[in-house]
Amino acid sequence: MTDKTFPSWPDVAPQLIEVAAGRAPADTVIKGGKWVNVHTREILENHDIAIKAGRIAYVGPDASYCTGPDTQVIDAKRRFMIPGLCDGHMHIESGMLTPAEFARAVIPHGTTTMFTDPHEIANVLGLEGVRLMHDEALLQPVNVYTQMPSCAPSAPGLETTGYEITAEDVVEAMDWPGIIGLGEMMNFPGVANADPKMLAEIAATQRAGKTVGGHYASPDLGPDFAAYVAGGPADDHEGTCEADAIARVRQGMRSMMRLGSAWYDVETQITAVTEKGLDPRNFILCTDDCHSGTLVNDGHMNRVVRHAIACGCDPVVALQMATINTATHFGLERELGSITPGRRADVILTSDLTELPIEVVIARGQIVAEEGAIKVDCPHLDWPDSARGTVHLGHAMTGKDFEIEAPAGANAVSANVIGVVENQAPTKALKAELPVRDGLVEAEGAVCQIALVERHRATGGVTNAFVSGFGYTGKMAMASTVAHDSHHMIVVGTCREQMALAANRLAEVGGGITIFRDGEELALVELPIAGLMSDSPATEVAAKAQHMVDAMETCGCTLNNAYMQHSLLALVVIPELRISDLGLVDVRTFQKIPVIEPLS
Amino acid sequence: MTDKTFPSWPDVAPQLIEVAAGRAPADTVIKGGKWVNVHTREILENHDIAIKAGRIAYVGPDASYCTGPDTQVIDAKRRFMIPGLCDGHMHIESGMLTPAEFARAVIPHGTTTMFTDPHEIANVLGLEGVRLMHDEALLQPVNVYTQMPSCAPSAPGLETTGYEITAEDVVEAMDWPGIIGLGEMMNFPGVANADPKMLAEIAATQRAGKTVGGHYASPDLGPDFAAYVAGGPADDHEGTCEADAIARVRQGMRSMMRLGSAWYDVETQITAVTEKGLDPRNFILCTDDCHSGTLVNDGHMNRVVRHAIACGCDPVVALQMATINTATHFGLERELGSITPGRRADVILTSDLTELPIEVVIARGQIVAEEGAIKVDCPHLDWPDSARGTVHLGHAMTGKDFEIEAPAGANAVSANVIGVVENQAPTKALKAELPVRDGLVEAEGAVCQIALVERHRATGGVTNAFVSGFGYTGKMAMASTVAHDSHHMIVVGTCREQMALAANRLAEVGGGITIFRDGEELALVELPIAGLMSDSPATEVAAKAQHMVDAMETCGCTLNNAYMQHSLLALVVIPELRISDLGLVDVRTFQKIPVIEPLS
Repeated sequence: MTDKTFPSWPDVAPQLIEVAAGRAPADTVIKGGKWVNVHTREILENHDIAIKAGRIAYVGPDASYCTGPDTQVIDAKRRFMIPGLCDGHMHIESGMLTPAEFARAVIPHGTTTMFTDPHEIANVLGLEGVRLMHDEALLQPVNVYTQMPSCAPSAPGLETTGYEITAEDVVEAMDWPGIIGLGEMMNFPGVANADPKMLAEIAATQRAGKTVGGHYASPDLGPDFAAYVAGGPADDHEGTCEADAIARVRQGMRSMMRLGSAWYDVETQITAVTEKGLDPRNFILCTDDCHSGTLVNDGHMNRVVRHAIACGCDPVVALQMATINTATHFGLERELGSITPGRRADVILTSDLTELPIEVVIARGQIVAEEGAIKVDCPHLDWPDSARGTVHLGHAMTGKDFEIEAPAGANAVSANVIGVVENQAPTKALKAELPVRDGLVEAEGAVCQIALVERHRATGGVTNAFVSGFGYTGKMAMASTVAHDSHHMIVVGTCREQMALAANRLAEVGGGITIFRDGEELALVELPIAGLMSDSPATEVAAKAQHMVDAMETCGCTLNNAYMQHSLLALVVIPELRISDLGLVDVRTFQKIPVIEPLS
Repeated sequence: MTDKTFPSWPDVAPQLIEVAAGRAPADTVIKGGKWVNVHTREILENHDIAIKAGRIAYVGPDASYCTGPDTQVIDAKRRFMIPGLCDGHMHIESGMLTPAEFARAVIPHGTTTMFTDPHEIANVLGLEGVRLMHDEALLQPVNVYTQMPSCAPSAPGLETTGYEITAEDVVEAMDWPGIIGLGEMMNFPGVANADPKMLAEIAATQRAGKTVGGHYASPDLGPDFAAYVAGGPADDHEGTCEADAIARVRQGMRSMMRLGSAWYDVETQITAVTEKGLDPRNFILCTDDCHSGTLVNDGHMNRVVRHAIACGCDPVVALQMATINTATHFGLERELGSITPGRRADVILTSDLTELPIEVVIARGQIVAEEGAIKVDCPHLDWPDSARGTVHLGHAMTGKDFEIEAPAGANAVSANVIGVVENQAPTKALKAELPVRDGLVEAEGAVCQIALVERHRATGGVTNAFVSGFGYTGKMAMASTVAHDSHHMIVVGTCREQMALAANRLAEVGGGITIFRDGEELALVELPIAGLMSDSPATEVAAKAQHMVDAMETCGCTLNNAYMQHSLLALVVIPELRISDLGLVDVRTFQKIPVIEPLS
């Protein structure tokens, strides 16, 4: 159950014993802190921690008997010693950062363990992409476990991904050293309908003794929910209200409560513990998705724990939800998640359990961050060309690729338009009457064009349709290769030539996000790895992303968080209208519908 | 992590889903009970449980939608529905019953899962004996997991067992389907001293992802304890006071609190939860050792839970300590220990959560007991001759085998005498002046003879010494092949001829316990399997055992529970004086000492 890049407890037990017995000196001793014990739920004044070979050898009132002349002594200065924080479920790609740069961004926030589901790259590069993420994860100085993605494509038959994940892939991945379980099983109707492929993936995970991640994104707690639970997922992070959390835990799942950049599901669910008094052991905190800006400006799991405390949760209970509860869930309670002998020496020093300032972060016995500054290298994988060159357009785009022909002789048409709604993931299925000029349907007013440009197999395919609600004006276009979940390229624009410029630009830089106006590039976020991630630091990516948001505003878009809307317009599992490489999809019926219809 | 004799969750997930979705009928539905939810720590009125293929498919307010014409409906009659009880650590041999008969005795008490350490048979028959216990365990209609014994012999160099358990044996056993971990690591000085054999056994268990059982039988919580914890044991059941329990849980171990036939360690430790308010999740209830009389007259895990509640523990918390806490400890929280989908359908119906009457017991979806009566077969293994004929004396004993020669010319000697203390496992190292007649030292007064008769290799070896405190009078002898931990034969008597009769009788019946007086057998408990167990029902064994106790009293022994004292007199790990096949052992110094010395 542990990765093989870090010596296991039995590997180093002889050394730990020698230190604990006082026959050999510790590598490091943390002296005189308040031991936050997540097993007993106590705070114990004036304790010491002795560390050897990256693991904890001793915790007790006095480690001077295992301190030698070469032992590094860290004075805790009576601060709280809490276990390194664990993120129970998250997607690294959401930060637009590689695992190394993500780790570098979150380590100063006290995150020392992440359970990551590289679902996005799986859509672009398949099992090989998952393997690359997994391999870079194992290079890090903190614990980055990989959940094997379960659902690529997310919507079989309605989209074409770069690669598909098969049940055989899942069987294979279960033997990789860093694989901790199955990533969120999003195909909940499939499980409830006993889809053999979904059940084969779950079975492979359970038979490997690993944890099946859940994703039940429906308010219905009737037979469909019961059938999903009976299928085997062991957790769920899609709950949004107290009743969701309670229902999941009663059924033997763990409730993962998330506070991401755009998810606010802790406050509404933690009342199950703080008000209803449920046993907290089956509640876990996670982020799911964090943008680089959140990591740079607000924090990571420290932000979530702080928020849980602000919601009225006892601080030690909140810490349990981000340490031992998480570790137990993944079968790692004897490996990490508490400050006790044998475990990885992942310890945070903080002077306040409510505000939770992250003052010193120790991971595997090394100081990895101090006062917000990283103190350790986060090694990069040598990403292969196959992962860097993933934008294959087939041909250079021109304005012609984005033309939408009208029926012969029509002066106007009725168009099915994707209606963007501020701050909501679901869209509206709208209709608009659009004019025809020179045989082409023209967007006007609030409506502009959207195109899904195929980029995995160089088919040259372009699906054209209409979208409204962004508020764009003038001659502009915005393109992104982050285009959930199949991650083709989504181009939105008011002008076909600008759309072509933007698409070609992303092909040139290997993916990312760009905005053009009047032939000029206003902003660019390069995401050369799989068209999803940058291997630049989070600060740079966050700055470029902010510049991109500013450019969207310059082009007339005043919606909050509109880039997320843009990147989700191909997510053909969320109602009502979406675009895919196969056409315009009505997600209410899971049917393709025409973009234009004759005026009635 | 599950035995392969019962279909796994993924094996039957398609069926469970069909039932939960309402597309197929359940095999069984339990209707209208109070759902005791050990995940949330709640009691939920008026719930139903639907069962398919021995596992739980659905738990909710109304299972009528998954009830068909052939579904067996059990009316819970508003009683509490609690998970089947788990015994976290125990030795089946202590009941002098085979696994099948032990199961038959405890199922009506609501025990549906046992974590058993066949340490006794390991001393007699080695790995083959463990395998036989394991194999019979897997035949049972309830869950009997096997902990691979770690310490045979218990005291290397001070005794000779029938077989030894090696680190290679442990590696081999970790692949057996019913092995759940390593049995109690009793050699705590060995672990604290980094003994390579002990660490190899622990490493093999940890690398297999299984649980290392602990046994730290010392009040010292200093560096020796720290070193033991650093070595890897994950639990301990040897704590006797609140401070012991707290120390173990703070260090990341689970505290197993036992109430056995002769262990009373719950009341003194559970205050860590009931008074100190520690998080209860790391506390587990167990029995360790139960005699058949306890099983017949008092109960099993129901007795322990009831006792914990009587000690002031909240009933649902006490139930967690005997269900989900135990399951989680052994990595089985998704397999058993709660009434939730996917888990084995092990459910008890009880009308009172304080008195805990065990009214109906359902295991793997079948009614296995009702109102104290077993309703199911507990299959016996066809035990091989090698397991049935284990008393090999070398030659028929005569009075001469028990003679203790005096030094030439002595009229009296000073003898080192094992002093039995009522209700205590430790003995006293006494001295007595004993007379010499015809060149032989004669016991007199409170002192009688004790002999350890070698029975594994037919060496004919007899170690003779003296014991006091039993109170025997007249010409009598008592012999037992239950003789912890190496299980040779211990004979105690006032008369050498009676000792020979008793020893030969046990050889004749293949082991057990017998008492002779004046040439007549007063009582006999046949234990033909390994000289440790009977395959008769618990009621018969308990009756014979009671008859044996009565016979001891007839012979003048008025000590409470004196048979236990008898059977422990060769346990060369507990101070002060013990007997082994190698001689008289002073356990304070771990040295052999002479039986007689010249008078000073």
